[in-house]
Amino acid sequence: MKRLTGIGLGPGDPEMITLKALRSLQCADVVFYPASYSNSGEVQSYSLKILEQLDFETECRPLVIPMMGKNRDEIYREAYHAIKESLDEGKEVAVVNEGDVLFYSTFGYLFKMAKADGVECSVISGIPAFIAAGGLGDRPITEGSSGFNLIARPQSFEQISDLLHARVNDTLVVMKMKVLEEWYGYLTQCSRPFLYVEKAGTPYEFVTSNVEDLRDREIPYFSVIVFYEGERV
Amino acid sequence: MKRLTGIGLGPGDPEMITLKALRSLQCADVVFYPASYSNSGEVQSYSLKILEQLDFETECRPLVIPMMGKNRDEIYREAYHAIKESLDEGKEVAVVNEGDVLFYSTFGYLFKMAKADGVECSVISGIPAFIAAGGLGDRPITEGSSGFNLIARPQSFEQISDLLHARVNDTLVVMKMKVLEEWYGYLTQCSRPFLYVEKAGTPYEFVTSNVEDLRDREIPYFSVIVFYEGERV
Repeated sequence: MKRLTGIGLGPGDPEMITLKALRSLQCADVVFYPASYSNSGEVQSYSLKILEQLDFETECRPLVIPMMGKNRDEIYREAYHAIKESLDEGKEVAVVNEGDVLFYSTFGYLFKMAKADGVECSVISGIPAFIAAGGLGDRPITEGSSGFNLIARPQSFEQISDLLHARVNDTLVVMKMKVLEEWYGYLTQCSRPFLYVEKAGTPYEFVTSNVEDLRDREIPYFSVIVFYEGERV
Repeated sequence: MKRLTGIGLGPGDPEMITLKALRSLQCADVVFYPASYSNSGEVQSYSLKILEQLDFETECRPLVIPMMGKNRDEIYREAYHAIKESLDEGKEVAVVNEGDVLFYSTFGYLFKMAKADGVECSVISGIPAFIAAGGLGDRPITEGSSGFNLIARPQSFEQISDLLHARVNDTLVVMKMKVLEEWYGYLTQCSRPFLYVEKAGTPYEFVTSNVEDLRDREIPYFSVIVFYEGERV
């Protein structure tokens, strides 16, 4: 049996993958990428959009893994089964996802299953979305002896407020912020400076630090907000 | 006046820089890298070690910035002055550092000075050290709806314990852990599973989850510890 390699594709711009990631895609026998179905039944995959723009010839196959929803254990078991078949055929298998592969990633779940199954695994890190988003701001994400907090799928705006108040010198990043509604209302009464970024590094990138830009705006899945230390001016 | 670009070199392995970073190094007129003097007066630079292994011809110049110590404002003013001279000569200037350029970075300070000075800046993100370190573990750094905390230059082991107790389902990363002594003693009484990594991605990489490996071990500057959720077995 050969090796399973998790490869981070980075935040969305195909040029933001590493030299090592590209070389590994070129050398693999098969590349699996996460995909989901749209409401109209079409296959959607941000990872595939990145792969299509890179210089390699390896066969690419989808793993159908919805970004939200139920029965996730069963969905991951099926995805792992497809990977395992290729490993059992003696193939060198790569599994990709956007961002990094062990930081709030799709691959993380498959990695645990493969480890439990005794498969030899390796990891090629990718740039996480929050790092690329922060690169679009006009100040450091964090520096010196300040701390850094990140939450994904926040439970409530109270959770966010509690974190901001408990650690006033720290930066807070909120990922998968779409799970909450009424961001505009929250931000109008929050005094921290912020950077809101949608789809960093893609043609659909949108960046603002102005609350008014978020009035009536629909928040997509790939959006991130960075709360910096200090007071908004 | 031309542009200033901050370029993240990633964690240490030259193959772990992005395609975009390499292209920008190739296109710049001059590349500045942080360096420091050893106790015996030699110039030391982890960034230069990475640059030397990459395929580009651009002139590289050191910015002497000690990793620790006093008079930091003055040191950064001098470094920025050297950069500004090149910008004023009409050059396309790149400034690199290890890891990312806005996440606990050397470039972050220079970026703020350049912004305040009205210089047009751009950023090419790099993989932060903690992401590469986490890639050497045998489980995801964090996943699902767990939170993520990171502190650099911890004040005390009490600060670390408080964070671990306050957020039992979150991962905590400690960077620049060298500022505390007696890690071995602390880890023997801490029940969280951990991953300790020195110099990820370099020939000097060292990784362990076993407390006994840290008895009498000297902790270097580029070391990171990841505390995962759960209990150590």
